[in-house]
Amino acid sequence: MPDAQRPQVLIVGCGFGGLEAARALRHAPVDVTIVDRSNHHLFQPLLYQVATGGLSAPSIAAPARSLFRGQRNVTTLLGEVVGIDADARLVQLADGRQLPFDHLIVAAGATHSYFGRDDWAAHAPGLKSLDDAFEIRRRLLLAFEQAELRADTEALNFVVVGGGPTGVELAGTMAEIARHTLRDEFRRIDPARARVVLLEGGPRVLAAMPEGLSESARQQLQRLGVDVRTGARVTAIDAEGLQVDGADGPYRLASACTVWAAGVAASPLGRVLAGATGCALDRAGRVLVAPDLSLPGHPAISVIGDLAAAQSHVAGRPPKPVPGVSPGAKQMGRTAARNLLARLDGKPTQAFRYRDYGNLATLGRHSAVVDLATPLGPLRFSGWAAWVFWLFAHVYFLIGFRNRLVVLMDWAWAYWTHERHARVVTTLQPRE
Amino acid sequence: MPDAQRPQVLIVGCGFGGLEAARALRHAPVDVTIVDRSNHHLFQPLLYQVATGGLSAPSIAAPARSLFRGQRNVTTLLGEVVGIDADARLVQLADGRQLPFDHLIVAAGATHSYFGRDDWAAHAPGLKSLDDAFEIRRRLLLAFEQAELRADTEALNFVVVGGGPTGVELAGTMAEIARHTLRDEFRRIDPARARVVLLEGGPRVLAAMPEGLSESARQQLQRLGVDVRTGARVTAIDAEGLQVDGADGPYRLASACTVWAAGVAASPLGRVLAGATGCALDRAGRVLVAPDLSLPGHPAISVIGDLAAAQSHVAGRPPKPVPGVSPGAKQMGRTAARNLLARLDGKPTQAFRYRDYGNLATLGRHSAVVDLATPLGPLRFSGWAAWVFWLFAHVYFLIGFRNRLVVLMDWAWAYWTHERHARVVTTLQPRE
Repeated sequence: MPDAQRPQVLIVGCGFGGLEAARALRHAPVDVTIVDRSNHHLFQPLLYQVATGGLSAPSIAAPARSLFRGQRNVTTLLGEVVGIDADARLVQLADGRQLPFDHLIVAAGATHSYFGRDDWAAHAPGLKSLDDAFEIRRRLLLAFEQAELRADTEALNFVVVGGGPTGVELAGTMAEIARHTLRDEFRRIDPARARVVLLEGGPRVLAAMPEGLSESARQQLQRLGVDVRTGARVTAIDAEGLQVDGADGPYRLASACTVWAAGVAASPLGRVLAGATGCALDRAGRVLVAPDLSLPGHPAISVIGDLAAAQSHVAGRPPKPVPGVSPGAKQMGRTAARNLLARLDGKPTQAFRYRDYGNLATLGRHSAVVDLATPLGPLRFSGWAAWVFWLFAHVYFLIGFRNRLVVLMDWAWAYWTHERHARVVTTLQPRE
Repeated sequence: MPDAQRPQVLIVGCGFGGLEAARALRHAPVDVTIVDRSNHHLFQPLLYQVATGGLSAPSIAAPARSLFRGQRNVTTLLGEVVGIDADARLVQLADGRQLPFDHLIVAAGATHSYFGRDDWAAHAPGLKSLDDAFEIRRRLLLAFEQAELRADTEALNFVVVGGGPTGVELAGTMAEIARHTLRDEFRRIDPARARVVLLEGGPRVLAAMPEGLSESARQQLQRLGVDVRTGARVTAIDAEGLQVDGADGPYRLASACTVWAAGVAASPLGRVLAGATGCALDRAGRVLVAPDLSLPGHPAISVIGDLAAAQSHVAGRPPKPVPGVSPGAKQMGRTAARNLLARLDGKPTQAFRYRDYGNLATLGRHSAVVDLATPLGPLRFSGWAAWVFWLFAHVYFLIGFRNRLVVLMDWAWAYWTHERHARVVTTLQPRE
């Protein structure tokens, strides 16, 4: 039970930021409560593997409360935060319960953005949660099943909208499934005749990477069988396909399974915070935080991770925006915890500084691009070596020893057999 | 593509019976089509492990079409059979498609029976499919989460209705979770204070077992912390609990999660078959088959597995009913395939003979009962040795090498750490 004498720290969200903040308070004289609307910490960088049947959900989702079993000052609660009272220092849950706090760290993350076209969501699910991954897996596998029933691959198109890391990972893996995993499993169709199209509105995929790696990624995707189309702007999405404005004019693209990987927006909790504290939001709905990650005028509240429009501060240089990646969220979690303890001790807080270790993305079997920031300058490579590096980096950062072992084994198995074991479909009906 | 010259064999259902029948036709000069409404073969004996978070779904669910990758005369289709035309030799799918057959093997299995009280289904899910397992897992884990939110274990009761193999496995594992798995994960409640009640209407649990093993099972369950109540008849179930007629009169039992393991009924396809062919059904809706497993008067149609009310025939002895267990279904699959080929060759068919290798059930960590039929007479044992025997027997029969390896690893891990890794809950809302 929490000790009424000790400061009560409330963390909203058990993603990379929230988890890291709670861990950083391990030895601190505070009671921590972490509240999340799901019961697990999700290793999002591998979520596309669940969506494509390569990994089972429990391999990348660790029960939140088991992660804190050994940290006695953490209480884990399952609940959805719907309101914040900054003056009374209370958080409101959807079930009517209230949670008090002395210090609040909001790490509620991001969700999809359809740029105002929320009607597209039903036809083109995004990939943020396990439920999203199950829905995409269901659509992907059912499209092949329907084609076998029809004995026809005519409309067996898969379209991924958005050429960022999630988009290229999904497109590359879908092509791999069609060409390798499903080979010899169908009798009336040739699954390799499925077409995977990757649509990117900008001039190149992986725009956050240096141009040479973008070009390498495009070539690797094409070698895997992905039809990469840059400068292709989506103007409409329905159940049967998409309307696209391409380099050569508008055209129609039939699609048996469309996935949205084009835009993210901050969690709606940003607006809740703005209503409660008057804080400012940027265009993506992210909270503009002070250099020390607290809310301007509300030092007891910090915002971290994808919900924060944070800047990296290095003395003598202009501040730089922090990219929405997991290392950024984890580093913010540690800084927010450190600043919270500094405030308790009456010491000055420190500005957040983002350490960029680089950037990597995988595209499918043997294919990846890596852009590492080293003390000697950038180290860039692609192809097989990049893929091995990507694999071990991701397994290393997976939470929980058991999961790492299982994921490595799953991959070793998939590598030799081309099989993807997690191909469960429990319902023929769509989610909507 | 199927060869129009070769006899077309249609198998409905990819459970133990259907899978085994298709495999037995591996080298036969026939084209086999196997149709199922889900895309996976489910290893049902371990389904309770998914319901209790010990195994992930893909560990016990192999994609049906990948099981037949190497068997070129099998076409796998995803579809729900809703009608049969015995004269035209056509099967009707829910989507309007028709599948022709020369020989039909119906292996559609069983479902829950609430003995006419289908309104209980919403409050007490049964355990037949992966969706059932997910729903039970959700309710079980959310009950603990709710108790932690309330800081109160008052109503933290789990009630399993039915003391057959599934009921004792679920009750024993639930007790293990409360006492071991969740220890140290809660701060406001002691999960070990959860109460697991097993209600059985008859005088003893595992009624199919010899009396000594039933008594041993009861003692082992009680040692695990299960409150075993025999002679307890359920008269009502609602969202908050059950009404029970016990040995000492009627009483009310609060329940945070009720599971139905008390009754099974044959698949509704039995009634479809009866309508199409005039065949007789028994009280549980199972099809009364001829000794060679065909439908009386319809030699082109066979019924096997849990949907068949089959008898075991041994020369010189009276026929004996076949129990609804997986070895029975598999043996029927092989006999139906053999008889189908005999008919093609114009040879006489053979009566089904069930070989009973015994019976075993597990009750939780270190606890099981085994009743083996050996040439030297029955071999009966319980406790630790029985548990090890049960474990290896089940892993041995798991379909697919990879799954065996993963399941063994999961168990080794769970054994040493008491952890259950597959504790994903993706939605807070109930299924209904």
